[in-house]
Amino acid sequence: MDETVKYLLAEERIPKYWYNLMADLPSPPPPVLHPGTKQPVGPADLAPLFPMSLIAQEVSMEREIEIPVPVREVYRQWRPTPLFRARRLEKALDTPARIYYKYEGVSPAGSHKPNTAVAQAFYNKEAGVKRITTETGAGQWGSALAFAGALFGIEIDIYMVRVSYNQKPYRRALMETWGARCVASPSNETQSGRAVLAQRADHPGSLGIAISEAVEMAAQRDDTKYALGSVLNHVLLHQTVIGQEALAQLEMAGDDPDVLVGCTGGGSNFAGIVFPFLGQQLRGGKKRKIVAIEPAACPSLTRGKYAYDFGDTGHLTPLAKMHTLGSTFTPPGFHAGGLRYHGMAPLVSHIKELGLIEAKAYHQVACFEAGVQFAKAEGILPAPEANHAVKGAIDEALEAKRDGKAPVILFNLCGHGHFDMQAYIDYQAGKLTDQSYSENELAMALAGLPVVA
Amino acid sequence: MDETVKYLLAEERIPKYWYNLMADLPSPPPPVLHPGTKQPVGPADLAPLFPMSLIAQEVSMEREIEIPVPVREVYRQWRPTPLFRARRLEKALDTPARIYYKYEGVSPAGSHKPNTAVAQAFYNKEAGVKRITTETGAGQWGSALAFAGALFGIEIDIYMVRVSYNQKPYRRALMETWGARCVASPSNETQSGRAVLAQRADHPGSLGIAISEAVEMAAQRDDTKYALGSVLNHVLLHQTVIGQEALAQLEMAGDDPDVLVGCTGGGSNFAGIVFPFLGQQLRGGKKRKIVAIEPAACPSLTRGKYAYDFGDTGHLTPLAKMHTLGSTFTPPGFHAGGLRYHGMAPLVSHIKELGLIEAKAYHQVACFEAGVQFAKAEGILPAPEANHAVKGAIDEALEAKRDGKAPVILFNLCGHGHFDMQAYIDYQAGKLTDQSYSENELAMALAGLPVVA
Repeated sequence: MDETVKYLLAEERIPKYWYNLMADLPSPPPPVLHPGTKQPVGPADLAPLFPMSLIAQEVSMEREIEIPVPVREVYRQWRPTPLFRARRLEKALDTPARIYYKYEGVSPAGSHKPNTAVAQAFYNKEAGVKRITTETGAGQWGSALAFAGALFGIEIDIYMVRVSYNQKPYRRALMETWGARCVASPSNETQSGRAVLAQRADHPGSLGIAISEAVEMAAQRDDTKYALGSVLNHVLLHQTVIGQEALAQLEMAGDDPDVLVGCTGGGSNFAGIVFPFLGQQLRGGKKRKIVAIEPAACPSLTRGKYAYDFGDTGHLTPLAKMHTLGSTFTPPGFHAGGLRYHGMAPLVSHIKELGLIEAKAYHQVACFEAGVQFAKAEGILPAPEANHAVKGAIDEALEAKRDGKAPVILFNLCGHGHFDMQAYIDYQAGKLTDQSYSENELAMALAGLPVVA
Repeated sequence: MDETVKYLLAEERIPKYWYNLMADLPSPPPPVLHPGTKQPVGPADLAPLFPMSLIAQEVSMEREIEIPVPVREVYRQWRPTPLFRARRLEKALDTPARIYYKYEGVSPAGSHKPNTAVAQAFYNKEAGVKRITTETGAGQWGSALAFAGALFGIEIDIYMVRVSYNQKPYRRALMETWGARCVASPSNETQSGRAVLAQRADHPGSLGIAISEAVEMAAQRDDTKYALGSVLNHVLLHQTVIGQEALAQLEMAGDDPDVLVGCTGGGSNFAGIVFPFLGQQLRGGKKRKIVAIEPAACPSLTRGKYAYDFGDTGHLTPLAKMHTLGSTFTPPGFHAGGLRYHGMAPLVSHIKELGLIEAKAYHQVACFEAGVQFAKAEGILPAPEANHAVKGAIDEALEAKRDGKAPVILFNLCGHGHFDMQAYIDYQAGKLTDQSYSENELAMALAGLPVVA
């Protein structure tokens, strides 16, 4: 038995500030545009959807944004999260690399998502908001917001992608136990939903459609706002507590990572672990290899176009420049539902364009294989999304072994897989297959991107 | 928002010793008897099932038993576990009581069970054992041992009560992901299983039958031993890390509990939280109210007879004096599967006889109601077993309010409910009902208790 090597920070070391990468970028990302005028959006355009405090964070250039005391008080329930050295995995791989992982599955919702859910619930509560609408795919984001809503006394309405609503009753039950209302999307509650259902009554739904429904409902009522679980600058900002803690923990460990790995769907857990390290680099610090791992079945960073696109299918959102597969692209059904989004966070897309990060796409069977190897060695069962990061880290470690190098690798284990056991059952039974999209459909979705001069 | 109040111990404060209540009891519990000779068993009788180190712990009178370094090294993955003050629950109840809970759901298997699984795997590994057999009901114990087996490189064979095997595929998948082999019990692999199946081909199984199967398989092979997840002295001993940490954490909090609450199935999580406090009391410290909460559908402490009985249905185990409903008693199917055992740990039974603890039985619907209230207030979704402790603590807090008192209440939240969502779905849908046993069946099971002079 190798010893468990865990680096814990004292409670006082929960970060007091979120780190804003915007302050250190060599150039700002392109502005977000109004879909009608094609001019940059202003705060007033976003006010129906978000409280002003979050809109201010969305466009802030300040390096450090103070975390409100009530948010830190809730973070204390599970933060600082542990950083582990994966000694038993290193041994199983027989690699000279030193592998560390930050574990965000210790939150009550089981993933990193509460880092921003709690912050968003706080700012909405402060602004007098009574109800928040949102969308969820696999359910990790929805359950995080349901949790935060229960704590702050805000009603939460969740438009859940219908295929997940039907296939993941346990995730749904978790949200409902915390008091949230879950609606299968597309639904009859919204114009966006009804329009989709008119085309196809048994439509399985998609994140893009669910976003349209949630946005539409929020825009209709003064006491209701909308919350997004990834993609937006302020969401990525809130996740930087992960990387800030990891920086301090690696200092405790006396190590400095050479390689950072995170999985990317909308980009928030990746940004959370990576941005604080990247900020150091941009301020003259060590240059590190930073790898974003995405699903080969929904490969926005590796196969998408860097272009202005809508965040949703119903085209109710502003236009953001990002790596996108097109807002009409429907990814095939694979198990890492949290990674099934047509676009990538504009900030993550921007640093990819700047050459600050690399991206790789993996198919799901190989990711589950890596996840099971990790579970046997380290004892923690990862979420299917996190398996992408696990596989990315393992590949870096094996490459190091081949090349006779001993890099320090850090990855973010963004959540546990307790609500994803059907996928593990399918994997063990040999029933899990790699999913693919139609090249034709992708080409059509890309051809349909909005025209921006 | 009330602040989160969490008491964390530094890693160095993981206990170095398990606390053995035997050393402080005013009288020892009655001896365990050989089922044939009805004479006290000796180490040689137990040697086919357990390594000598665990047999020594089973009969030890030492107050402190050193925790081996490799066991503490694994504990470090999730220990010390947090102690929380349930401020938001107190507010929801509008009670003057101060409620604390120790949270054991942070372990990789999601419950307190790895505290002993890791220790048992270590001692078996040390003794050269290649394979461990065990039984599991709801699957918490099985998954804990599967986890420990993966870490120490020991094969784990788990006889899983058939009704759970069929109803809880996700728990099973968790065990299998860690590399364990799960067998639906009663099975055709053992004489005990075949005998039951001959009577009734579709028998749903019971913990008592699964224990018989696991014991039978272990006794057959030299390289194979047996492990039990509760009931035995050495299992309860390993769980005392919970209470020892809680003692230190309450000292940090500047509070001293007046009331301790734990749920009881076999008795191990209850013993884990309670024994270190009870030891203080027996050595002249503060007298506290200690309440064991059991399911009304399987009420060994409140309706059972204090008598010698077998631990299993096939009558392969020694006879232990305990509160028992009779080894042929089959409890009805309720959702806290971890509490569905006909007997109670001999040590817990003994201190009940000595008047050192009280016992109460609750029906499951009221426990789920308490669990949902807890989840909304505190953000953690309890396991159905833990809901019994939650309900017990809430009742104490409401009683205090009625009486105008302000006691300090401590309870053990022994696990999370991520693998028990179907029960929450049934509860929310109003489909959960209270289960009962037949008085006639209970009377018959008690009448069939073995005769010991």
